[in-house]
Amino acid sequence: MPEQPVAVAVSTVIFGLQAVEGGPTLHLPLVQRVREPHFGRWALPGGPLRADESLREAARRTLADTTGLRPSHLEQLYTFGAVDRGAVQDRVVSIVYWALVRTEVAATTRKDEHVAWFPAEAHPPLAFDHDEIVGWAVKRLKAKLEYTHLSHALLPDEFTLGQLREVHEAVLGRRLDPANFRRRVEATGTVAPTGAHQAGVRHRPPALYRSTAREELLT
Amino acid sequence: MPEQPVAVAVSTVIFGLQAVEGGPTLHLPLVQRVREPHFGRWALPGGPLRADESLREAARRTLADTTGLRPSHLEQLYTFGAVDRGAVQDRVVSIVYWALVRTEVAATTRKDEHVAWFPAEAHPPLAFDHDEIVGWAVKRLKAKLEYTHLSHALLPDEFTLGQLREVHEAVLGRRLDPANFRRRVEATGTVAPTGAHQAGVRHRPPALYRSTAREELLT
Repeated sequence: MPEQPVAVAVSTVIFGLQAVEGGPTLHLPLVQRVREPHFGRWALPGGPLRADESLREAARRTLADTTGLRPSHLEQLYTFGAVDRGAVQDRVVSIVYWALVRTEVAATTRKDEHVAWFPAEAHPPLAFDHDEIVGWAVKRLKAKLEYTHLSHALLPDEFTLGQLREVHEAVLGRRLDPANFRRRVEATGTVAPTGAHQAGVRHRPPALYRSTAREELLT
Repeated sequence: MPEQPVAVAVSTVIFGLQAVEGGPTLHLPLVQRVREPHFGRWALPGGPLRADESLREAARRTLADTTGLRPSHLEQLYTFGAVDRGAVQDRVVSIVYWALVRTEVAATTRKDEHVAWFPAEAHPPLAFDHDEIVGWAVKRLKAKLEYTHLSHALLPDEFTLGQLREVHEAVLGRRLDPANFRRRVEATGTVAPTGAHQAGVRHRPPALYRSTAREELLT
């Protein structure tokens, strides 16, 4: 059995909300490839694992290098290692993380002509098997977001229940009934009122809430 | 940045039931190391990823090579890649799978003086970070087993509700109320009566059930 090298890469699917007509929508930053294979195609931020860094450190580094962002949530998704993943010479195993960034952070991404945000469910065809990987990440996000603290990682520290509902609507891709949503969120105990109200709203300004997560969401 | 090689290994945590005094108990096969590092220590079955096989194929191969077993369930657990995982020279990233084998299969493991089954929660200290990995796998198994089709992967094709309860008791490590268990399992619709009864029991032989899983559990 000839010993062929297996290369190890770490990639990250980064989710953030971007304001578009109709409300915030789930987006992700992609990087345009500047060399073969798949020259010109968009791909997930990532790169080879360095011998002196952990998998998580590699995810944070490539995320920062390509987008300038720090995640508010970072978690291992899955390791993809099919033999024919599309690389030219080496066999590449990709350990994929998924990350959430806060709305205000997502709006200030590093300017780079080869980095752009696309709607999570309406992006161009991606290089390698990255379409499949993004599909997995969206599915995981949907499964984990509902009525947990995780949705708070997409919002500022203080938020209204309307903003929180918009996060859920953006991820789930459908409208939610405001009264039902409020009832269900309050029942989970994942948010607590701060006592303050949203500034700049004159008539009945909505109450502000914060996450009750004991652990700091920043990872 | 010097390009040091990162080696890729695939390991598998294999769970099966073994009959001991007091009923079936969750066990796992381990392999005794016959070379340094950690010479003589017990470790998870596994080995280097070959360039021509997928991760899942590697998991099945190393599982078969070391224990002679075919799994009834096989799923990726997590990829472990801390810098100081205990190898001597190379940096090793381990993609870990977890597997279930049926009771009758677990009883017929290949004879090998360097392979032995140990209780999942009372095994000797393992090589490398394998204690941590087994802990993760037990946690995942507990979380996924309850009232899903997964528990059937530890049983023969037809089983009594008493045998199913013993599987859950073995995994959870505590006794369950038979009447409550029957009610909850029947409510999930994961099992259906075959119409037959257990052979060899003269007085009120218990009914046999089968899994309602549409997909074949064998992977």
